[in-house]
Amino acid sequence: MSHATETTLFQIRTVWHETGRVFLLDQTLLPTVEKVIEIESVDAMWDAIKRLCVRGAPAIGVAAGYGVWIAARQALASGEDVRANALKACERLASSRPTAVNLFWALDRIKIIIKDNNTSGAALANIILLEADAIRAEDLESCKAIGRLGAALIKNGDTLLTHCNAGALATSGFGTALAPMFWAAHIEGKQISVYADETRPLLQGARLTAWELQKAGIPVTLICDSTAASVMSAKKIDGIIVGADRIAANGDVANKIGTYALAVLAHHHNVPFYVAAPWSTVDISSLTGADIPIEERTREEITLSGDNIIAPEGIAVFNPAFDVTPARLVTAYITDKGVFERISES
Amino acid sequence: MSHATETTLFQIRTVWHETGRVFLLDQTLLPTVEKVIEIESVDAMWDAIKRLCVRGAPAIGVAAGYGVWIAARQALASGEDVRANALKACERLASSRPTAVNLFWALDRIKIIIKDNNTSGAALANIILLEADAIRAEDLESCKAIGRLGAALIKNGDTLLTHCNAGALATSGFGTALAPMFWAAHIEGKQISVYADETRPLLQGARLTAWELQKAGIPVTLICDSTAASVMSAKKIDGIIVGADRIAANGDVANKIGTYALAVLAHHHNVPFYVAAPWSTVDISSLTGADIPIEERTREEITLSGDNIIAPEGIAVFNPAFDVTPARLVTAYITDKGVFERISES
Repeated sequence: MSHATETTLFQIRTVWHETGRVFLLDQTLLPTVEKVIEIESVDAMWDAIKRLCVRGAPAIGVAAGYGVWIAARQALASGEDVRANALKACERLASSRPTAVNLFWALDRIKIIIKDNNTSGAALANIILLEADAIRAEDLESCKAIGRLGAALIKNGDTLLTHCNAGALATSGFGTALAPMFWAAHIEGKQISVYADETRPLLQGARLTAWELQKAGIPVTLICDSTAASVMSAKKIDGIIVGADRIAANGDVANKIGTYALAVLAHHHNVPFYVAAPWSTVDISSLTGADIPIEERTREEITLSGDNIIAPEGIAVFNPAFDVTPARLVTAYITDKGVFERISES
Repeated sequence: MSHATETTLFQIRTVWHETGRVFLLDQTLLPTVEKVIEIESVDAMWDAIKRLCVRGAPAIGVAAGYGVWIAARQALASGEDVRANALKACERLASSRPTAVNLFWALDRIKIIIKDNNTSGAALANIILLEADAIRAEDLESCKAIGRLGAALIKNGDTLLTHCNAGALATSGFGTALAPMFWAAHIEGKQISVYADETRPLLQGARLTAWELQKAGIPVTLICDSTAASVMSAKKIDGIIVGADRIAANGDVANKIGTYALAVLAHHHNVPFYVAAPWSTVDISSLTGADIPIEERTREEITLSGDNIIAPEGIAVFNPAFDVTPARLVTAYITDKGVFERISES
């Protein structure tokens, strides 16, 4: 593995603005097709978030910011009220996905900017764009801080396990759960390897995490979600790092379905279980995990694979996109503001 | 749910002999296509076992018995030595899959019959067929005993969880893990419902278990493997019943990958964890689970879905078909010879 410079890690661009246009990498097509699509309306951004063309809590927040700016730009072009249309876009985008709090956090930032500002028209649209750009830039800085702080928890020779994708693709670049791995390998030169859960039903681990780690030159082995327990039992795992879609005030963590199972298994096997997330993922208005809304997605995500029918017609399906891991099962939280360990039960 | 008679439960035929011909239901095509194929050579039977056209520890044993008979029949037709060809078929079929001990148990029965018998030619071929038929008939009786004994552990109103397929399709009919559910619902009239893990990578839970339970009129909800922990945490599961591919002398259980994770999760959530298997699944020559060979299958089972590429090219894959659950995590073993609980640590 080569010691790449830090900058090579940022070459996966997830969602961004370039000379007045907003682009995103369509993650539904990975790993076989790397297709960048331009987003030109609020509805298109809503759809891109809903369909998981852009996904991952921090990236959804960034996407939402640009979505509001697209509404402002359109209002400006058609001579409509920028403020009213931007605020309407905030409401619309908030309905796309319920669990990742960064979506609401980013929209709140934009709404405050709009409400605190006396400007209108082009000036207001520009201020919205500046805020959306700032959210993206701050997210990237947060990821770097998470990488640097988290890397201290990784020893040379460690084998880590991760679930779903909390990498560059889930953020503005560099990732949350994967950031400490990138930092440890590329900045600190530690030899590490990673097991990636494939993460049913949408296979973000197989399609995205395996792809990112392969691109980053970090040895990665793909496993089915249900294989993680065996690998832990064989004492092959030195630590688990996952991302978070929302962290409640008491430390409970909502993250991709399967995270809770891993946390219980980690506890049973005495494997450290880390949650990596920017501070914007903490939602103090959710007192515990029970207050976090859990998105349920369509049955077809489980009954179909592409066009192949893989379950009997009419079968009942339970397809929650997330689960809640109680704080007591989290060894430490790796955030951009520091690494936090629980020292007492809540 | 109607109170069907017991006989309706046997209408799913897995592998059977009929007027000199051997048939099996091609399970790779379920649930969309119910196709019966005739097996006409040892190689075809080896391939059918290897490709999981017929799978499930007891059913593999039955299939192997008929496979030897096919060799005997062919030898007879071509004027070759029945005994030599039958014994050669035993060796060939033993190489198809390493973990399920019923395969070796059935082949050993056939080998003993061949060796203990002085006949040759048509008489020997007939004796082999009688033994293969006996293995199938005894398996069906074992399943019924497991169903009857296991049903006593199920209360009216219970919600159960199962993994992979240990149903009629995994046996000569009626199943092992599913047998107590069929018996409780259809013979005893208990109202039960079942969560079925889809069971990656080959989705036997989605394709086979969900299909069987739906046919049997038992309410079933399909979930991803990694969702089971959430469902347990929500206290929705009264018991877990799984099958077994091999049970070591100390009670350790090899079964479909993901079983061990479920056992740990059941322990954490205080949910009873039952293993249902005929006595032929017990292998006293494996002292502990560490002695059981675990089959690793191809990377394509995880990197492809039909023709769709779902992982990056060249990615490393770890694809064990089974895992080992230590005896201490098993609440009880439901066998055709009785229900056994551990009362002390080994």
